[in-house]
Amino acid sequence: MTFIGNKSDLKVVGTRPVRPDGVEKVTGRAAFGADMAMPGMLVGKIKRSPHAHARILSIDTDKALALPGVKAVVTATDFPDIASEEAFVGEGPMNFRDLSRNCMARDKALYEGHAVAAVAATSSAIADAALDLIEVHYEVLPHVIDVEAAMAPGAPLLHDDLFTQNTEPAPAKPSNIAKRVHFRLGDIAAGFREAEVVVDGRFTTQPVHQAYIEPHACIASVGADGQSQLWGSSQGQFMVRAYCAKLLGMEISNLRVIPAEIGGGFGGKTVVYLEPLALALSRKSGRPVKMVMTREEVFRASGPTSGGVVEVKIGARKDGTITAAQAVLKFQAGAFPGSPVQPACMCAFATYDLKNVDVTGYDVVSNRPKVAAYRAPGAPIAAFAVESAMDDLARKLGMDPIALREKNAAKAGTKTAYGPVFPEIGYQQTLAAARNHPHYKAPLGPNQGRGVATGFWFNIGGESSAAVYVNEDGSVNVVSGSPDIGGSRASMAMMAAEVLGIPVEHVRPIVADTASVGFTHMTGGSRVTYATGMATVQAAEKVVEQLKQRAAMIWDIPPDAVEWKDGEAVPAGANAGGFDPLPLAAIALKAGKTGGPIGAEVSLNAQGAGPGFGAHICDVEVDRETGYVKILRYTAVQDVGRAIHPGYVEGQIQGGATQGIGWALNEEYVYDAKGRMDNAGFLDYRVPVASDLPMIDAVLVEVPNTRHPFGVRGVGEVPIVPPTAAVGNAIRDALGIRMHHLPMSPPKVRAAVDTGSG
Amino acid sequence: MTFIGNKSDLKVVGTRPVRPDGVEKVTGRAAFGADMAMPGMLVGKIKRSPHAHARILSIDTDKALALPGVKAVVTATDFPDIASEEAFVGEGPMNFRDLSRNCMARDKALYEGHAVAAVAATSSAIADAALDLIEVHYEVLPHVIDVEAAMAPGAPLLHDDLFTQNTEPAPAKPSNIAKRVHFRLGDIAAGFREAEVVVDGRFTTQPVHQAYIEPHACIASVGADGQSQLWGSSQGQFMVRAYCAKLLGMEISNLRVIPAEIGGGFGGKTVVYLEPLALALSRKSGRPVKMVMTREEVFRASGPTSGGVVEVKIGARKDGTITAAQAVLKFQAGAFPGSPVQPACMCAFATYDLKNVDVTGYDVVSNRPKVAAYRAPGAPIAAFAVESAMDDLARKLGMDPIALREKNAAKAGTKTAYGPVFPEIGYQQTLAAARNHPHYKAPLGPNQGRGVATGFWFNIGGESSAAVYVNEDGSVNVVSGSPDIGGSRASMAMMAAEVLGIPVEHVRPIVADTASVGFTHMTGGSRVTYATGMATVQAAEKVVEQLKQRAAMIWDIPPDAVEWKDGEAVPAGANAGGFDPLPLAAIALKAGKTGGPIGAEVSLNAQGAGPGFGAHICDVEVDRETGYVKILRYTAVQDVGRAIHPGYVEGQIQGGATQGIGWALNEEYVYDAKGRMDNAGFLDYRVPVASDLPMIDAVLVEVPNTRHPFGVRGVGEVPIVPPTAAVGNAIRDALGIRMHHLPMSPPKVRAAVDTGSG
Repeated sequence: MTFIGNKSDLKVVGTRPVRPDGVEKVTGRAAFGADMAMPGMLVGKIKRSPHAHARILSIDTDKALALPGVKAVVTATDFPDIASEEAFVGEGPMNFRDLSRNCMARDKALYEGHAVAAVAATSSAIADAALDLIEVHYEVLPHVIDVEAAMAPGAPLLHDDLFTQNTEPAPAKPSNIAKRVHFRLGDIAAGFREAEVVVDGRFTTQPVHQAYIEPHACIASVGADGQSQLWGSSQGQFMVRAYCAKLLGMEISNLRVIPAEIGGGFGGKTVVYLEPLALALSRKSGRPVKMVMTREEVFRASGPTSGGVVEVKIGARKDGTITAAQAVLKFQAGAFPGSPVQPACMCAFATYDLKNVDVTGYDVVSNRPKVAAYRAPGAPIAAFAVESAMDDLARKLGMDPIALREKNAAKAGTKTAYGPVFPEIGYQQTLAAARNHPHYKAPLGPNQGRGVATGFWFNIGGESSAAVYVNEDGSVNVVSGSPDIGGSRASMAMMAAEVLGIPVEHVRPIVADTASVGFTHMTGGSRVTYATGMATVQAAEKVVEQLKQRAAMIWDIPPDAVEWKDGEAVPAGANAGGFDPLPLAAIALKAGKTGGPIGAEVSLNAQGAGPGFGAHICDVEVDRETGYVKILRYTAVQDVGRAIHPGYVEGQIQGGATQGIGWALNEEYVYDAKGRMDNAGFLDYRVPVASDLPMIDAVLVEVPNTRHPFGVRGVGEVPIVPPTAAVGNAIRDALGIRMHHLPMSPPKVRAAVDTGSG
Repeated sequence: MTFIGNKSDLKVVGTRPVRPDGVEKVTGRAAFGADMAMPGMLVGKIKRSPHAHARILSIDTDKALALPGVKAVVTATDFPDIASEEAFVGEGPMNFRDLSRNCMARDKALYEGHAVAAVAATSSAIADAALDLIEVHYEVLPHVIDVEAAMAPGAPLLHDDLFTQNTEPAPAKPSNIAKRVHFRLGDIAAGFREAEVVVDGRFTTQPVHQAYIEPHACIASVGADGQSQLWGSSQGQFMVRAYCAKLLGMEISNLRVIPAEIGGGFGGKTVVYLEPLALALSRKSGRPVKMVMTREEVFRASGPTSGGVVEVKIGARKDGTITAAQAVLKFQAGAFPGSPVQPACMCAFATYDLKNVDVTGYDVVSNRPKVAAYRAPGAPIAAFAVESAMDDLARKLGMDPIALREKNAAKAGTKTAYGPVFPEIGYQQTLAAARNHPHYKAPLGPNQGRGVATGFWFNIGGESSAAVYVNEDGSVNVVSGSPDIGGSRASMAMMAAEVLGIPVEHVRPIVADTASVGFTHMTGGSRVTYATGMATVQAAEKVVEQLKQRAAMIWDIPPDAVEWKDGEAVPAGANAGGFDPLPLAAIALKAGKTGGPIGAEVSLNAQGAGPGFGAHICDVEVDRETGYVKILRYTAVQDVGRAIHPGYVEGQIQGGATQGIGWALNEEYVYDAKGRMDNAGFLDYRVPVASDLPMIDAVLVEVPNTRHPFGVRGVGEVPIVPPTAAVGNAIRDALGIRMHHLPMSPPKVRAAVDTGSG
């Protein structure tokens, strides 16, 4: 594996070829989760709890089963009752007891929308009728929605057996606090003693949904011998396979999961909801079962990210040197443990080179849908607080907010509070690019303000597999196990083309099913272009070795007398004769006669992902009368390591920033007194649409990650981290009022104008 | 690669596990070519020539296109006009001009049923109506059906530019004789001079259809950017990809072919018919197009095998030693060159160790559908003549027919007329097993007779790819590119399980699409268990090497201190500690921590296929009044090298024998005076059904092929070779009359009884 540091050596990487998935998507032919049909298939639907918290006394399915056209009903008793220990499957440790009980409530319904039964019937109307005929008797229990209320003594307990992990002494009584996280560096008390200026604040965020356009959808087909297929959209066909096999007690090889095109995931499709139910219904009915969530179900029963409370306190010397940084993070996990409070604690102060840090996090259950990953999970919540406080600190110090960050910026060698020491990173270059951007110097009008905030995500590697197959005419197929949620097909094809030295148009990338390619972790954490890309590059390099060997056979010269150059074998060195170059296609045509088809497969566990940093500049105009905040201009600068396909990278940054802006200004879950969601739809849950925003200027900084052959860092997570604070800081600039609570929606902004505090 | 000669060392190979495709097939869930649907798909249908031979003067598609619901019409002008040279694609040389013109007639319709146009419409009824609206003006030409009539001077010429290949001097004029084949060994004249007894005869066979239950079917979907998918049933998804790409001028990587379950092929699905038309219609309409042949279309327009005329002459000494063997074979190719006369000439005398051989073959076009491969292509036609003559020779010599064959039997070191010298083969062991079988000594009643005949097929290897992937729970997926037409999924899983040392139930085999596995030649020639099996074995061996390395990492000992035994890593040798064995599943669970997923892919071009031999014994009872021949008892003995899954091997032998019996007794094409087929349906084209036959006793002789790790020889072709002569020899035994013409149907047998000659 060669690291190609010099951009001018690259012919394909860094260009903007036509997207391999473009035409299919714009012409409507791409097949998403709900686009598959199977002969004899049934419609599966879910009976959901109307209560936020209730004991399930009984479920009577007889009347439903008696309805003509109903072929199967399942409840929790159709699934193994998995013990509460974290089990390890290919995707890593996971509490399968919780996952199972989230997919289908066992003793208690823990949130409104929690599945309690599912039916499969010959039509949608019959399935609906059957749901009404299922009689569930509940004992309604007191519920708790808010995170701090859930932490309070005497709060309604969701789980009798939940004892806070990682506290000393171990708690004697159960509570809703699942886990305590604590990172520290240096001496926080000494740091604050050293401080000349201190800022602090208490910030709250609301849960926001990943709001992918495509609802969850799948079709399952279980044979009488247990051999099963599942077709659907997810962020990981191998994840779906592993989780479903565990939840249903199947052998993994008996389940083949075929990935559909995915209409957005953003972390929300890293778990299973429908899939185990569809499999159980198919197993019971003996027929294929298709299940598609409504948008309302997506809101009520699939994971948003956490809402949280973050208390932050930062001390600095007058020259801007931060001496102490402290935060306490309380995160809603939803009905089962597992908020992203840990990565939030990791990311909270990771942009800064600090001596004294103390971060404590709490993972807290309440009667809400179990949270799922959402782009840089947890980091935006921490960043809203930390980067707002940094803005306050800059103002208090009279410093430029970028200059303050530059003074304290993390760099190669910075020791993080959560452990690692940074390798070569590009935060300083990113800050410099933001400082030098024309946007940062552009004039502002009345009621307008400018905010700056930065963000961090560590990025990950992990297990990936890829194969490169050379076709008879010299065209190439690149196969991976990573669902393409942000252009990974394009980037795999481009990296393979670069290594092979052929035009990318001759390389067709595909995402294979779980039986046709090696195991691959799910698409997430900004790992795919890095890790699956590394597998692809290595497979292409193996293919080049084969091509050289075949050329040597054809020429009858030693293999080491052949070089690969611009897609051709060329004789080189003293042992080579004066042969004309052999292009890849000529070697491919003779593959059968030189040993057989040419191809290579590589599986690996990639280490050394490159941390990513971003700096956003946001201009707003605030309507003091209505509280409406208009985004006037938005610039997102980010160190991407190296952009394989800059167009997709820019799209990732624009998309992440847009989601962050929605989180900042509008998105929230509204609950009534009974713990029922009031706004489960896109009319009332308001995500930004194109007309809400200016074109976001994505600025790519390229500080290559030397541990990837082309310098790739993950790019998909970072851009959602800065916006909440960037928008808040811009409002602060416009209004002179610090907003502490998301979303900074018109009613809250108007109230802040009225009261003078936000 | 280790050759495992000792059967007792095998734990999985040779057992009879439940078939991996069994439940799916018996429950009707297996998805065959016609079982797929796509949103927005159109129905494609074909306009066919009603004439056996006609010039196409014009095709007017305007009215058809004007019909509401018609979305596209294609004719030959929608395909590139490919030059008449044999081109090489991955599947080997092929005349794509002929293939293209067989799929869609260009200037002339060359047989009744020849496609002249195709439509795609929103419904089957509209497509039918559109076919009627296509106006084709023909100039009807004289036609020729019979092979010898086609060879005669002055016969209607199918192709103005067809000059007989391989004749000296090169012919000055075109003819219907496409090629002459000639093999010889020794001095045939001297051989006949040496002979004390000579037999000869002229034998004719009728074309018979492969008669797969599933008609040809596919769905094509071509995107506006050219990226295309084709779903369908065939004997080779890579063959379909290569042929269609060539016929449509597509880059191979732009076409992904997904193999459906296949409902029989027997050689008849080794070419394309519908596929290029469906792609062209989809390309033109912009919508998916599904095409399914009717049974009538299958008969009229897809390849049967050749009918032929074979003149044979054999001379021997009185002790039974054959001194000379001569044959002339004239084979119908159908409308385009390419009968299996060459393999027929190769196989004709290959069962015998001969000094003087002379075999000449002619490949002759006539106004019939172009022939396609059919199980041991050509060999049964040659064997009908040769093995009938051998029976006559035995009678003339007063020798037992098996003893005569044993005296002249080919063995290791026998030089064949077509070139190769045989390696270790099992013909003699097969003859001995037949001779010793109780059937051979069982008494016969009145009007009953017993016949013996033998058969040969060389078997082939070729290009294959396979991958073995270890799942997180230790179950395993085995992936190949070979459609499973005779149990190859089972045999791949079993060979992988044997190498891995795990129960076969933990191994799931799949047949992957063309983008998801390395290139693989089509399933045919009895190559898959041999060649794809070798790729599977080698991939499994690579996996074992990885498993040993991972165990060494876990134990922290050198890799060479680990052995693999019964599915477990065990420490071995001086460098190893006293560790407990690590089963595959335990290593699999830790794969991520020891370097990543475990799997391996192997592509190869397998050489050294093992020739196969069979000896069949057939008892018949002839009803002299009706001419009806009842098969009383049938024993098929065959050297299979080694039976991986004996149940499937027996099925292959029973199926091949059954098809041969149908060929012997009933199957034929009946043409009217205008060259139109009269019996294009299963009511009039009579294949044997279960009630027609006794249970066929398949006897497996195992003389391992030392060039395959488990000793595999191909088994699927040989069993169709002996039956025509075995049945004929039994009728000869019962009636005292030699039948020279197939099928030996009631009218012919009754006529023979009446005239005293057949």
